[in-house]
Amino acid sequence: MLMGIYRTATESEAGKTVGVDPTTITAPEARKLAEKIKKKGGKDLVAVKENLVDLVWGKEKPARPNEQAKVLSNEYAGKSYQDKIAELRKEIDKKGSAGLVVSMLDEIAWLFNLRGNDIPYNPVFFSYATVTASTVTLYIDESKLNSQARAHLAGVTIRPYDAIFSDIEALARSEATTEGKEGKKQKYLISTKASWALSQALGGEKNVEEVRSPVGDAKAVKNETELKGMRNCHIRDGAALIEFFAWLEDELVNKSARIDEVEAADKLETIRSKHEHFVGLSFDTISSTGPNAAVIHYKPERGQCSTIDPAAIYLCDSGAQYFDGTTDTTRTLHFGSPTEMERKAYTLVLKGHIALDVVRFPKGTSGFALDTLARQFLWQEGLDYRHGTGHGVGSYLNVHEGPIGIGTRVQYSEVPLAVGNVISNEPGYYEDGGFGIRIESESAPKVYL
Amino acid sequence: MLMGIYRTATESEAGKTVGVDPTTITAPEARKLAEKIKKKGGKDLVAVKENLVDLVWGKEKPARPNEQAKVLSNEYAGKSYQDKIAELRKEIDKKGSAGLVVSMLDEIAWLFNLRGNDIPYNPVFFSYATVTASTVTLYIDESKLNSQARAHLAGVTIRPYDAIFSDIEALARSEATTEGKEGKKQKYLISTKASWALSQALGGEKNVEEVRSPVGDAKAVKNETELKGMRNCHIRDGAALIEFFAWLEDELVNKSARIDEVEAADKLETIRSKHEHFVGLSFDTISSTGPNAAVIHYKPERGQCSTIDPAAIYLCDSGAQYFDGTTDTTRTLHFGSPTEMERKAYTLVLKGHIALDVVRFPKGTSGFALDTLARQFLWQEGLDYRHGTGHGVGSYLNVHEGPIGIGTRVQYSEVPLAVGNVISNEPGYYEDGGFGIRIESESAPKVYL
Repeated sequence: MLMGIYRTATESEAGKTVGVDPTTITAPEARKLAEKIKKKGGKDLVAVKENLVDLVWGKEKPARPNEQAKVLSNEYAGKSYQDKIAELRKEIDKKGSAGLVVSMLDEIAWLFNLRGNDIPYNPVFFSYATVTASTVTLYIDESKLNSQARAHLAGVTIRPYDAIFSDIEALARSEATTEGKEGKKQKYLISTKASWALSQALGGEKNVEEVRSPVGDAKAVKNETELKGMRNCHIRDGAALIEFFAWLEDELVNKSARIDEVEAADKLETIRSKHEHFVGLSFDTISSTGPNAAVIHYKPERGQCSTIDPAAIYLCDSGAQYFDGTTDTTRTLHFGSPTEMERKAYTLVLKGHIALDVVRFPKGTSGFALDTLARQFLWQEGLDYRHGTGHGVGSYLNVHEGPIGIGTRVQYSEVPLAVGNVISNEPGYYEDGGFGIRIESESAPKVYL
Repeated sequence: MLMGIYRTATESEAGKTVGVDPTTITAPEARKLAEKIKKKGGKDLVAVKENLVDLVWGKEKPARPNEQAKVLSNEYAGKSYQDKIAELRKEIDKKGSAGLVVSMLDEIAWLFNLRGNDIPYNPVFFSYATVTASTVTLYIDESKLNSQARAHLAGVTIRPYDAIFSDIEALARSEATTEGKEGKKQKYLISTKASWALSQALGGEKNVEEVRSPVGDAKAVKNETELKGMRNCHIRDGAALIEFFAWLEDELVNKSARIDEVEAADKLETIRSKHEHFVGLSFDTISSTGPNAAVIHYKPERGQCSTIDPAAIYLCDSGAQYFDGTTDTTRTLHFGSPTEMERKAYTLVLKGHIALDVVRFPKGTSGFALDTLARQFLWQEGLDYRHGTGHGVGSYLNVHEGPIGIGTRVQYSEVPLAVGNVISNEPGYYEDGGFGIRIESESAPKVYL
């Protein structure tokens, strides 16, 4: 989408003004785009509050999903939302800020110990939240909250989802909250990933400090209960995977059955779903045979996908949501005799996976610094893979979460890995039109004495 | 020094104005300091052109060194200064800039194929330079240039060293150079490491773009002649080191001689000085015995240093300037029986050195990403070292040069290593009060097919 937006800038010459729906772009992106527009001879970027596409939709626009948001009990969350708010307030105070507007859906779900079902695979719900020294407000359609959720949120002000913009406009105007301890005007924190619309509602840059969200930072450091849950759900999930792979081998090799990629994925989902605390998948299963395994984000289409070839590589990248955690595992198998190159590539990928798995590193080391360990054996043969090596994994939340990561993106150098993180380890190798290999497990750094 | 400056900020409360000599601080540092001062309740940071320390010195102030600057022939430089200027102008044009003010002494020496002797170990000379589309000006005391240098610099305008500030003030005011192709005002490039005084003389931020110097970037990529010279001088330098170590072993072990750290360093210098093209040392030799080897930047003092203990580790970090290149090598020796821990640490450091030496890596990989390879074996044992793993090395220039480096500083992620770079590989291990180990050689990335 952004590619399109930036192309727009090149068409803004001769003093044109460019309009954009400020809820679809972040504040840093808006600044960058405005700069580009001016450089190209355009006049400026302006926020257009009425979304033009919505106007065309008119009454035919599909309603926003409105599933129930459910309470995640302390048995799984490990910490009350009151304690999380108290810790967050310490961070807000440390930064000398008036408050925080939370806009990332997984951060809100984590902060309030609620899970929803508005977005496929991600147990989140449409919402915003604000936290100040004296108030906690959740912006959510009340119909999403059952009586248990309402009782759980005692002490939290519930406001309609759409009220966020007018409310924070009023909040930023209020003298009381913008006057700091030392007589200096306090700013509101928003995430660098928050929409431009939020920044504008707060009065723009003079009232806003864009930061890496302290909620995201806190969420990435799992507590003991969450870590235990992650381990437990991976044991169940691992058992499901083994059962599935054994079934698949039996079908393909012993029974010479014709099984296509989607049928295999369905079988795996059926096996997973029998396990305790199963909620659903955490992303579209990548069930891929032969050359399809070389397509990093391959998605087999029902009825149109390939039949699994027992004489080729089969790569399966899959995961699930459980009440006690989120899984994401890739295994690359061959039910016959792999070629020399397939064996070699698998060995190099596995060596990288193991090097990253066993590494001991000092406090302060980031995923940027560790990335090379996973690639070194491929590099030595002139090979590489064009994706990151690891991403943070949510705790019964989004299967991809920041701010940590292992890879060559410089942002991964900003956040050291820490005890409590759960991060994937997934080097790979891909030969276009040939085969693909990826070996992925989740890791959790431990303190080494 | 900067620590002191920043402490000053904390004493600026109650609306005080803080003055600073703008030639002693960079423009980014000045901005940061001004911000700190205001945050602490001070009024502002102002540039004080008259240096207060100089006022106290009065006529007793020692004169600036004024050694001759000599021509480095193409036989060693490999590229004429005219070609370097032509390439630099392409970079200036690519950036849409009016010109570049060159302030780093090693960049000026490299750009004009001149070498000086104003600063110990660094063959540079006091100077500034400016390059625009139509002019090249070198600011240097004319007395530093002999007739050969003057002939070499035909086509370059020579101006007095101190004229730089008034000249660039006039340059920035001139309509002709500040009016760009598209009617937009062009800025002057200065290095982010240039002094605040230079930025101010150009009229400040509105006229200045602070960049990583394109001269520094070009200098870091050695040409074939420079690379050949670097290899050749390392062969001669290596022979000198071997002769020295053999002599030292003979003295200590066979003759049971008492040799102190400075005597050993002197002997090494004498041996080096007999080799072709020798100019001088490239830094103070670190000749260190036993616990002294644990002091990373140890400098033995004549008459007060330790006698080399043949039953302890001896660490020698040294290098020299030759007409055809600059060397920097560390070897750690033991003339008796090292302890178990010394053997183990040496092995771990050597493994890291070798891992970095043999690594193959794809285009675009930075020294930040490679650093971990050198540390991994120490990390695995819970050990580490608190210095970078590698620095760029000049070509008969400063023994430390940017912008490349191997280490945990995030700036090293900004510049990929490239063919033509010469960079040190020097992991180590230090036990306070015990021993120190460092193994350092220079590396030059090659294209791998």
